[in-house]
Amino acid sequence: MSAEDRLQGYVGRVRRILEDAGAEIGDEIEVRVGEKTYRGILIARYELADPDHVVLKLPSGYNIGIRMTGDISVRRIAKARKPGFTPPPRPEAKPGLPKVTIVSTGGTIASRIDYRTGGVKPALNAEDLLSIVPELSEIAELDSEILFSMFSEDMTPGLWNQMAERVHRLIESGVDGVVIAHGTDTMGYSSAALSFALQKPPIPIVFVGAQRSSDRPSSDAATNLIAAVRVAGHAPFAEVCLTMHAWHSDDVIAVHRGTRVRKLHTSSRDAFRSVNHEPIAYVVGGEIKVNTEGLNPRGGDGYRFRPGFSEKAALVKFYPGMGPEIFEVLAERGIRGIIVEGSGLGHVANRLIPTLKRLIEEGIFIGMASQCIWGRVNMRVYQTGRDLLRIGVVSLDDMLAETAYVKLSWCLAQTDDLDEVRRLMLTPIAGEVGARSLPTRAEGVVA
Amino acid sequence: MSAEDRLQGYVGRVRRILEDAGAEIGDEIEVRVGEKTYRGILIARYELADPDHVVLKLPSGYNIGIRMTGDISVRRIAKARKPGFTPPPRPEAKPGLPKVTIVSTGGTIASRIDYRTGGVKPALNAEDLLSIVPELSEIAELDSEILFSMFSEDMTPGLWNQMAERVHRLIESGVDGVVIAHGTDTMGYSSAALSFALQKPPIPIVFVGAQRSSDRPSSDAATNLIAAVRVAGHAPFAEVCLTMHAWHSDDVIAVHRGTRVRKLHTSSRDAFRSVNHEPIAYVVGGEIKVNTEGLNPRGGDGYRFRPGFSEKAALVKFYPGMGPEIFEVLAERGIRGIIVEGSGLGHVANRLIPTLKRLIEEGIFIGMASQCIWGRVNMRVYQTGRDLLRIGVVSLDDMLAETAYVKLSWCLAQTDDLDEVRRLMLTPIAGEVGARSLPTRAEGVVA
Repeated sequence: MSAEDRLQGYVGRVRRILEDAGAEIGDEIEVRVGEKTYRGILIARYELADPDHVVLKLPSGYNIGIRMTGDISVRRIAKARKPGFTPPPRPEAKPGLPKVTIVSTGGTIASRIDYRTGGVKPALNAEDLLSIVPELSEIAELDSEILFSMFSEDMTPGLWNQMAERVHRLIESGVDGVVIAHGTDTMGYSSAALSFALQKPPIPIVFVGAQRSSDRPSSDAATNLIAAVRVAGHAPFAEVCLTMHAWHSDDVIAVHRGTRVRKLHTSSRDAFRSVNHEPIAYVVGGEIKVNTEGLNPRGGDGYRFRPGFSEKAALVKFYPGMGPEIFEVLAERGIRGIIVEGSGLGHVANRLIPTLKRLIEEGIFIGMASQCIWGRVNMRVYQTGRDLLRIGVVSLDDMLAETAYVKLSWCLAQTDDLDEVRRLMLTPIAGEVGARSLPTRAEGVVA
Repeated sequence: MSAEDRLQGYVGRVRRILEDAGAEIGDEIEVRVGEKTYRGILIARYELADPDHVVLKLPSGYNIGIRMTGDISVRRIAKARKPGFTPPPRPEAKPGLPKVTIVSTGGTIASRIDYRTGGVKPALNAEDLLSIVPELSEIAELDSEILFSMFSEDMTPGLWNQMAERVHRLIESGVDGVVIAHGTDTMGYSSAALSFALQKPPIPIVFVGAQRSSDRPSSDAATNLIAAVRVAGHAPFAEVCLTMHAWHSDDVIAVHRGTRVRKLHTSSRDAFRSVNHEPIAYVVGGEIKVNTEGLNPRGGDGYRFRPGFSEKAALVKFYPGMGPEIFEVLAERGIRGIIVEGSGLGHVANRLIPTLKRLIEEGIFIGMASQCIWGRVNMRVYQTGRDLLRIGVVSLDDMLAETAYVKLSWCLAQTDDLDEVRRLMLTPIAGEVGARSLPTRAEGVVA
C-alpha cells in the first residue's frame, strides 16, 4: 500500500464498492445506506480497525464514519480538487514603512488542510500569507520568498546553513528585518542555528510558527505573524528571536531569544517557552515592550556572518539501564562530537564512563547538558560528575541540550581542532549560556 | 592520575610542597603565605587551570584557593578523618502509630559530604536519618533497611526489580506504608517502575529524595522525609507516589503520581513536577490534602504484584539531522523495543521512516512520545505522523517519554508476544496515560 494509493486505507469489499463507483480519495461522493444519504469528501484512512467503514469529510468540516452494510450505494459527484483559494487583492504598501522580507520554510504557519489525506501539508506560500493577513501592510513594506516547503522535522544542519546564507543575503540587500516562517517541531533548533551563524546582526531575524494551520478559525498564525513582522520592522533590538503566543489568549506574544527557547507543549498555542532566561520582549496590543537588558541594538556594526554546520554532531539522551552501544556506533560512523543529555546535575551511569573516556581519547568532543531542562549542569557536586570532568567531558552550564547540539554542529564546521571546539563551546556567542536563571527557579543552586 | 591519588589534582611544585609537609587530601593543614595563615582541610582538585593554587575547606564550610607563591610554608595539623557523626539516642516510638519502613537506596537524601573529595557521596543509612529527624517518631513507628547504597544514575531495570521485590515483601509483612529514599537523578523512572510492578497496592509506597544533602543547613531532606513518612503512614490513598517540595519554601510538599512526575530542574528544591496531571495530594502544615479524585484507597483488595523489567528496551531522542545508525545498532544488539522521543505531536525525519519500518517488521516495538514533555502525541494531524502510524509506530498519547521507557521495559518482561506488548502499552495500568491535562495547558489541542 503506497502513499500513492488512490483508495488509501480501504480494503476488501468496501474498496471494491468504491472502485466500482469510480471514487478516489478527495472526490466528493454520495453514500446511501438504507434510507439515509451522506454527501462529502472521501478521505484516506490509516487505521484498519474497522474495514467496513467509509469516512467522509462533511461540508461542515466534520468527519463521519459510515458502516457499509445492508442496502448501500455509492455515487461519485465530483473529482478531487485542491482546496480553492483566491487571494484578495494585495493592499498597497504605505510609504515610509520598514522593509521586511518573509522567508517561508514550511510548517503549519504556511500550510492548509490537505483534503486528500485529511491531514495538514505545508503548501501555502508567503504571498498567500500576506493576502490572508492584510493588517501586515500597515506595519511593513513586505516582500516574501519561499526557501523550502518542508516539515521542520526534516530539517538538517545543511539546511540550517542554506537558511543562514539566505538571511545573510537579505541583510546585505538592506532590508530592515527578516521573518522566517517555520514548522514548530524543530523551530527552536533552527533559531539557535541562525543565532550562531549570524552574530550580532544589524537587523532582527524573527522566527515564527503556528500551532494551528492558517485556514482554521482558531489559528494562531495571523497574530503570531503580525507580531513577528512588527518585531522585524520596528524592534529597537536586532536579535535572532522567535515570536509565539505567550499564553493561550491572543493578547500577548512573547519574543524569545533564539538560543534560549524550547517547544514545551505538543499542541497549545503557548507551546514555546524561554528556558533559564526571560523572554527578551513582549508584543502587547501592537506595542513592543523590551523585557531584558543588554540586547544587540538595531543598526549596530558588530555583525559577523559565520556560516557552516557539520553533520558530525549528535545529541544523545541518557536513561537508566542505557548501554554503551549508542556511543560506540556514533564513534564508528565518524561522529566528531556528542552532546549528552545527562540526568540531574550532569550525570550518566558510571559503567558508561570508560566508553566516554575512550571516545574522548579518540578526539571526540563530549559535552554535558541536563535532561532536567531547567537549571545548570554542575559536575563538581557528586563523584560521578567529577569523574566525568576528569576524563574530559565538558560541562555546559545552563545551555539547553538542543542549543548545545546546534552549537556543536556549528563549532565542528568552524574548526578541525578539538581544543578549539572546546574553547568555542565554552565561549558565550549568542546569549546561549550563563545568564541568571528565572528568579522563581534560580533559588537553591547546590554548589 | 588515579582516583586513589592522595594528592588528587595537585602537580609540580605545589605537589612537592604538599608532599614535603606529609599532607594528603582530607588532612587538616595550615598554610602560611607571607603574613597570612590559613587553616582548613585540603581538598582534591579536578581542574588544572591554576596549578599554583592549593584549595582548603575552611571551618566555616567555604572553600578558598591560596596562591602558593613567595614566602610560603605548609604544616600538617591532623590526619584525614571521616566526618564525625554520633547519632543522638533514638526517641521511643509512641504506641498506636502506623508502621512505616524506610528503604534506603542511596542518593543525596542518604548522603553526607565527603571531605576527602569535597563532593557528596551516598553514605548515611536510614537509621541515621531517623536520628537526625526525631520528629518522625511522632508520626510513625519506624523501621529502616538499606537496600542499595548507590547513585541513582547507576539504576537499572534489574535493580528496579529488586526494589519491587523488597517492597512486595514489606507489603506482605503487614507494614502500613513504605518510604523509598532515592537519588533524585532517576527517581522519576524508579517511581514509574514500581507503579507498574506493584499495581493497586494496599498501602502507600512513597519515593522521597533531597536536592541538598542532609548534613547541610539548607537541606530539604528533613521536610521531604517527614512528609513522605506522613503520607506512607496516614494517607487515605495507597498509590506509588513521590513527595518533594512543591516550591522553594518549606510550606508545601507535593505528592506526585509515580508515573506522572519528572525532574525539571537540576538543583532547585521544587525540581520535581507533575506533568500532564496535577499532584495527587499536598502536605501542608502536617495535613495531607488530597487533590485528585479516583485514587486507589488504602486497604483495597485489588493488589497485583507483577515484577519483571527487561534490559531490552531503549529510549531514543530524535533531533534534526539524526541518522539511522542509533536505531540500527540497537536492533543489532538485540533490543526488543524503543521509545522514540519525537518532535512536536510525535514526528521524526521522514528519512528515518524506512529504518523504523524495517525494525517493526523484524518484531521490534516502536512507541512514540514527545520531547515537548507537555501535551499529547497526536500522529493523525500531519503526513509524517500518519506515515509513522501506517508502518506500525504506536502513539503513546500523553505518557511521559521516561515513563513510556519504563513501561516498555516492564511489558517486555511480561510477554514475548509483540501484539501483547502493543496491547499492554496502550492499556492504562497505573494512571500513566490519558487523564485530562492541566487546565492551563490543555487549551488548544490541534486534532
